[in-house]
Amino acid sequence: MAGKTHAGRFFEDYRLGEEIIHAVPRTVSGGERALYHALYPARHALYSSDEFARACGLEAAPIDDLAAFHLVFGKTVPDISLNAVANLGYAEGRWLRPVWPGDTLRAVSKVIGLKQNSNGQSGVVWVRTTGLNQRDEPVLSYVRWVMVRKHDLSAPAPEPVIPELAAAVAAEDLVIPEGLDFTGYDFTLAGEPHSWADYEIGERIDHVDGVTIEEAEHMLATRLWQNTAKVHFDASQRPDGRRLIYGGHVISLARALSFNGLANAQMVIGLNAGTHANPCFAGMTVRAWSEVLDKAMTPAPGVGAIRLRTVATTGEPFVLKGSDGRYLPEVLLDLDYWALMPL
Amino acid sequence: MAGKTHAGRFFEDYRLGEEIIHAVPRTVSGGERALYHALYPARHALYSSDEFARACGLEAAPIDDLAAFHLVFGKTVPDISLNAVANLGYAEGRWLRPVWPGDTLRAVSKVIGLKQNSNGQSGVVWVRTTGLNQRDEPVLSYVRWVMVRKHDLSAPAPEPVIPELAAAVAAEDLVIPEGLDFTGYDFTLAGEPHSWADYEIGERIDHVDGVTIEEAEHMLATRLWQNTAKVHFDASQRPDGRRLIYGGHVISLARALSFNGLANAQMVIGLNAGTHANPCFAGMTVRAWSEVLDKAMTPAPGVGAIRLRTVATTGEPFVLKGSDGRYLPEVLLDLDYWALMPL
Amino acid sequence: MAGKTHAGRFFEDYRLGEEIIHAVPRTVSGGERALYHALYPARHALYSSDEFARACGLEAAPIDDLAAFHLVFGKTVPDISLNAVANLGYAEGRWLRPVWPGDTLRAVSKVIGLKQNSNGQSGVVWVRTTGLNQRDEPVLSYVRWVMVRKHDLSAPAPEPVIPELAAAVAAEDLVIPEGLDFTGYDFTLAGEPHSWADYEIGERIDHVDGVTIEEAEHMLATRLWQNTAKVHFDASQRPDGRRLIYGGHVISLARALSFNGLANAQMVIGLNAGTHANPCFAGMTVRAWSEVLDKAMTPAPGVGAIRLRTVATTGEPFVLKGSDGRYLPEVLLDLDYWALMPL
Repeated sequence: MAGKTHAGRFFEDYRLGEEIIHAVPRTVSGGERALYHALYPARHALYSSDEFARACGLEAAPIDDLAAFHLVFGKTVPDISLNAVANLGYAEGRWLRPVWPGDTLRAVSKVIGLKQNSNGQSGVVWVRTTGLNQRDEPVLSYVRWVMVRKHDLSAPAPEPVIPELAAAVAAEDLVIPEGLDFTGYDFTLAGEPHSWADYEIGERIDHVDGVTIEEAEHMLATRLWQNTAKVHFDASQRPDGRRLIYGGHVISLARALSFNGLANAQMVIGLNAGTHANPCFAGMTVRAWSEVLDKAMTPAPGVGAIRLRTVATTGEPFVLKGSDGRYLPEVLLDLDYWALMPL
Repeated sequence: MAGKTHAGRFFEDYRLGEEIIHAVPRTVSGGERALYHALYPARHALYSSDEFARACGLEAAPIDDLAAFHLVFGKTVPDISLNAVANLGYAEGRWLRPVWPGDTLRAVSKVIGLKQNSNGQSGVVWVRTTGLNQRDEPVLSYVRWVMVRKHDLSAPAPEPVIPELAAAVAAEDLVIPEGLDFTGYDFTLAGEPHSWADYEIGERIDHVDGVTIEEAEHMLATRLWQNTAKVHFDASQRPDGRRLIYGGHVISLARALSFNGLANAQMVIGLNAGTHANPCFAGMTVRAWSEVLDKAMTPAPGVGAIRLRTVATTGEPFVLKGSDGRYLPEVLLDLDYWALMPL
Repeated sequence: MAGKTHAGRFFEDYRLGEEIIHAVPRTVSGGERALYHALYPARHALYSSDEFARACGLEAAPIDDLAAFHLVFGKTVPDISLNAVANLGYAEGRWLRPVWPGDTLRAVSKVIGLKQNSNGQSGVVWVRTTGLNQRDEPVLSYVRWVMVRKHDLSAPAPEPVIPELAAAVAAEDLVIPEGLDFTGYDFTLAGEPHSWADYEIGERIDHVDGVTIEEAEHMLATRLWQNTAKVHFDASQRPDGRRLIYGGHVISLARALSFNGLANAQMVIGLNAGTHANPCFAGMTVRAWSEVLDKAMTPAPGVGAIRLRTVATTGEPFVLKGSDGRYLPEVLLDLDYWALMPL
């Protein structure tokens, strides 16, 4: 009526190089940690136990790395993806500092690429998003690109700029949390005996378990991150009344399921790439499998880095794409990331 | 069997002037705050961020005003509305002090009006309820009236006393939280640029978004407030198995949805009136619209008061009543309240 | 693929006398307390209010005794009951120390009995599980026995050892929390006037209320305790897509429902026996009734102990077994425990 509401940005509203300060900073507490455990079968000991985290050189258990990611991501939705047609990819993601209960997170994004589609109706926007804590220290940085609709079809197309993005974060660029030390790591309390040395590049692991998703669960999760995109909440958006599940919900589910076989891949520290291959809906039973893509040493005592592909699927493990090179319809997520493991 | 259980009070059990001390005090923490975010699309920055609240002169982010309301309300249910046929109205509600994590809330109610219905089977009870913290400081006070069944139909009708209630809380009676100062208000972090001066009396805002409610969600919410009225939880109470959704759940949903267009209406500070126009059930997609009813200055620096009607509906915005003067069937809630905004 | 995942133990993997250290310690906070309130209609004042707990001689409200039980139990699932056919019973359970927000719990179990079934395909394993806090102080100890499948049917049967278990914890063996003092107990704030003296052995109480369970609710609860047994989460495990509800969810539901009639049975302090008589599924409306089995004095000022049978059922109160001595199909849980009450 009076133009007070926020319709989101359209493709023509982005300018190369502009910095967008996202609204609604958020303070986290043990409440978010407890809810993360209720929403996902998360069992990695370093996030579950203050004592275990202290034995690894940290002051306490941080907020789960993916919870920090979702909180930062959620802030960006009203400015970046409210009118997005598709969430196309992630790159160059690095966790830069743990997030502790009591911290307040906010987010800023810089537009680093723009390319109008040939149909003139939409375009691709690349942003580099940074999450900051209350001391303005960066806690997380990643590139995301989305396809966004144009509102004013007559708006001129910007000069196309496609950023050059690394295929993966280089191992030497990973930022290991200060103090992290796995030399006294307790494999028994962590839940599995396999150390970094036990994993081989190319090795694949079926995480076995499946979790069936309910509408209430993914909506609670997505709201918790203050991601208010209507496709996740409003049954009237689709004829079948189903709500499209936030892709990050599937990321957290797959990561939590990966505990069974990767219990010692404690901290997610780098995000190389990620594809939401097919939409996820309530009623689906999600399973996960992983492949070891790479391994590297880190300067921290006893700490190795492992590069993993973790795939969320409603089907069989270890199948990903068809003969046409496209993801099979049962594949929901193909995530490529670095985690930290005891040597 | 042995009469140990609590059947709730009936109309003939209330005495004018009596004070009812409600049971089960409750300590709140960051857990309640996190759950409020998971249950409602709540994004008002002052409740989301300790840093934002500090920049507004408070010591930290308080527990959401409506969470405080629900906690106090929940305590009253076993004594006031367990045998209520209808929750008829609210008046003269004022938030008197923020509730902080760590506070313990309890509630007392005074019976201020009684009127038996002409059918002799029920009557209306008016109570003034006060929420108190662990220092016995009032945090919230409001009048509510409910229609309650008689159990002993032969019990004599009390002398009818209908309290005189203000049509609205006078602006000068609003209690501004100590220290609140909006002179350095950050509109960017709050999410919208519109200040108090930008809203006109009579202006109406469609909050655009819709949220579809699941049974699990409203039951989690209602239990969180320790409201245990069986109609909200027991599928055997209705032939269709649906559970009547706690009216306060719709209030919080509508308030959270109003962020889009009223992001700067930060604190709910007065409750003038409220009608649960029609019952709400799981499966409904709730939307909200608001109308500016009044505006007033406050003595606090940079702080204005805005009186709003916010309506929750499953239908179109800006329609409320039919030609017969009755609420249309799609209207769920008609809430009249004061909020605080930066000038 | 590479044998990295945990398939759980089979009957032949247990050795009499061995001690199993369970993985994934867990730190609790106000978040777990808030979620407990959202998941169960829990209203016992001592767990709801720090102030009420302080007036009873404690430093603050502990984490609900049953939440502590579920957390410890959850840790044992991967080692004890992942391949269990049935959870057969509990005995000799004692809460030894309150669990406070900030505490970190871990669990160890000792194998105290083994008996292969005559069919040679499975056997019964008895374990005594102890929950420990971050100071290695025991907080909880109980015996549980489960029927577990054999994987290698040719593995030799162990020498049968059936532990002698007490039919009930002796009242003098109950461990009263340090400082507990009910001499200044506030019955009004607790919600009911009935003291220990008001209950008679043999007395039965119908707790009246019913709660209908949704899939999302029991899965949130069961995950919160890091119990990841697939039968609770994976719809593909049964032709009808229903997920078997964790027995502990029914225990907490029954205990919370028992508030109505047993509001002053504040702390659960001993677990004598428990039978999950029939499986529970979403859609069921659970009710509860209790019977007073015994009463005893304790050395703590103003504190009595009451031994209760609390039954969860989808049917009528006060019926338990048929003429054949078997539980009726509507009975879900038959729990025998000690609680502490003001004299």
